[in-house]
Amino acid sequence: MSRFLSQKYADLTPYTPGEQPQDTQYVKLNTNESPFPPSEKAMAAGLKALRPLQLYSDPDCRIVREKLAARYGVRPEEVLVTNGSDEGLNFCFMAFCDGAHGAAFPAVSYGFYPVFAQLNGIPYTEIPLKPDFSVDPADYLGIGKTVFIANPNAPTGMALTPAEIEPILQANPDNVVVIDEAYVDFGGESCIPLTREYDNLIVVQTFSKSRSLAGGRLGYAIGNRALIADLDALRYSTNPYNVNSATLAIGAAILDDEETTRRNCAVIMENRDYTVSALRGLGFQVLDSRANFVFARSPRVDGEVLYRKLKARGVLVRHFSKPEIAQFNRITIGTRQQMDVLLTAVRAILEENE
Amino acid sequence: MSRFLSQKYADLTPYTPGEQPQDTQYVKLNTNESPFPPSEKAMAAGLKALRPLQLYSDPDCRIVREKLAARYGVRPEEVLVTNGSDEGLNFCFMAFCDGAHGAAFPAVSYGFYPVFAQLNGIPYTEIPLKPDFSVDPADYLGIGKTVFIANPNAPTGMALTPAEIEPILQANPDNVVVIDEAYVDFGGESCIPLTREYDNLIVVQTFSKSRSLAGGRLGYAIGNRALIADLDALRYSTNPYNVNSATLAIGAAILDDEETTRRNCAVIMENRDYTVSALRGLGFQVLDSRANFVFARSPRVDGEVLYRKLKARGVLVRHFSKPEIAQFNRITIGTRQQMDVLLTAVRAILEENE
Repeated sequence: MSRFLSQKYADLTPYTPGEQPQDTQYVKLNTNESPFPPSEKAMAAGLKALRPLQLYSDPDCRIVREKLAARYGVRPEEVLVTNGSDEGLNFCFMAFCDGAHGAAFPAVSYGFYPVFAQLNGIPYTEIPLKPDFSVDPADYLGIGKTVFIANPNAPTGMALTPAEIEPILQANPDNVVVIDEAYVDFGGESCIPLTREYDNLIVVQTFSKSRSLAGGRLGYAIGNRALIADLDALRYSTNPYNVNSATLAIGAAILDDEETTRRNCAVIMENRDYTVSALRGLGFQVLDSRANFVFARSPRVDGEVLYRKLKARGVLVRHFSKPEIAQFNRITIGTRQQMDVLLTAVRAILEENE
Repeated sequence: MSRFLSQKYADLTPYTPGEQPQDTQYVKLNTNESPFPPSEKAMAAGLKALRPLQLYSDPDCRIVREKLAARYGVRPEEVLVTNGSDEGLNFCFMAFCDGAHGAAFPAVSYGFYPVFAQLNGIPYTEIPLKPDFSVDPADYLGIGKTVFIANPNAPTGMALTPAEIEPILQANPDNVVVIDEAYVDFGGESCIPLTREYDNLIVVQTFSKSRSLAGGRLGYAIGNRALIADLDALRYSTNPYNVNSATLAIGAAILDDEETTRRNCAVIMENRDYTVSALRGLGFQVLDSRANFVFARSPRVDGEVLYRKLKARGVLVRHFSKPEIAQFNRITIGTRQQMDVLLTAVRAILEENE
């Protein structure tokens, strides 16, 4: 750090994103992107509707906001549009974690939560998972902190139902509960309908997974009007033109083609079942995933060794060094062909390990 | 605000961006965009080089960073790439304005500076302009605060030379000085060469003005390696994939076509001379502009009245209600044709005012 940096960031450890090799030599199963591009229909319609790039993008993100509202049965003023869901999550940490309250989230979850907390000087509590790696809703009842739960959780892929989450909302009426549903479209159940009943619920979603737009940077938050107005005030105090025009245009066109999104998700879920069966057949423990990735460990090969050997064979998966999950790898579900390349490599590595 | 919002934002007044009507009924001279689209050559090359949108964008922004480094004669690690220059400015407020120091900037300047300061809980001092509306470098010598100077300044358009800025750097060796050069390509002189000599200088620039990419959201900061590393740590703790893939691709292609950028800037400067002469001929006071806008007032019509009457005639300019500049309007320089529409409207308004 330079001699000028604010002391409050002296201990900040930035988030480490997954490797993003810029060439195409890898079968890339490490950052939970979609293997499918946006549909040709959506790309064509989006580029056709593109606002001239020399003009600023729409700071109200009106068209995307209205389409999201229609899609989820809420009002446009209950939707915040963000530069990826990370931006919205950071705004939630900034806005709703005052002083002594602080934040609480699972000890094994999206690695950005502790970074956002540190960045904003917010005390936080990491709640251990149950021995089966699931989140126990009982741990969050009356906790008196701002709660962040990824549902489905990452990197486990395991999900709670809205009925399991509802008691957390009821038992923390004076704290905001943020449900991060980045992966909900792959077999999870959304809490968006609960935003009608609870004024302390924010649901965050993204176009980066099921909607094939990770490179466009588009996310959103849904909650009651007062919470969204707070987040929007932070957006207008940070970067009002937060989403670029190309992404707004293509994002809107993707929302007009939900049929493709649904079909892509169905294929991913089919390929997930296929991959889970094959890995279990090879002796892996695979957690019950409702996401576009699986979290798996083998009694026959160390987690980090498997990660490195897969990389050497051109298959990129994600390994986390946190001790309680260091035996696992998180494997994105891609096309059937990509999964076969993975499985062939896994089989070869297990054999050479014998 | 909701009952959940952090008390520290209770008094926050978000930035008010210029009006962005989404239709095309206006001659839009209110937010200093370029009247020229990115060149067809750059658009074609950019779209051809586009990384598949289902994959995350490059968090290192490597190609754009390297091209900017080559363009400005610095090293890639001396360049930070941001989602518009606003993001970089906010990072500078976050990073370098610790506690009692606080920030200092001209009382009439980019309206976002006080918002960034408030957002980050930073005390700030607004230094009055000289009676001729110029920034007086002497006011910043040994000020002991983090200095933000837009150069050329907005909304005045007036510029300091690097030789006038250098004493500020020398007289504040323990504070960072941020020179915001959003408008430098229209006849200003950049302080980037001074980053080689001063470890307390950051220069911020943008693709939103001279490079016709306001809708893409692309900005950058240049400074010594340690300062840039600090800012990058904040970027990686906030939103590592801050710039989307389409913008990175088109931005890189625009940097490969600096000839078009130079030609567009020359046309804007020619149209500025034309507009300044015409307005002065109509009795306006027009400040000496080195930017792609002019700041002008007429003794014959109130500033806000002129703004409203122009809008009624389909010409959008920017009016600020701050008392010391309320008689002025800021008028973006567009095409010769757009300026003629403006001038015709101004003449008609002056006549109906007699």
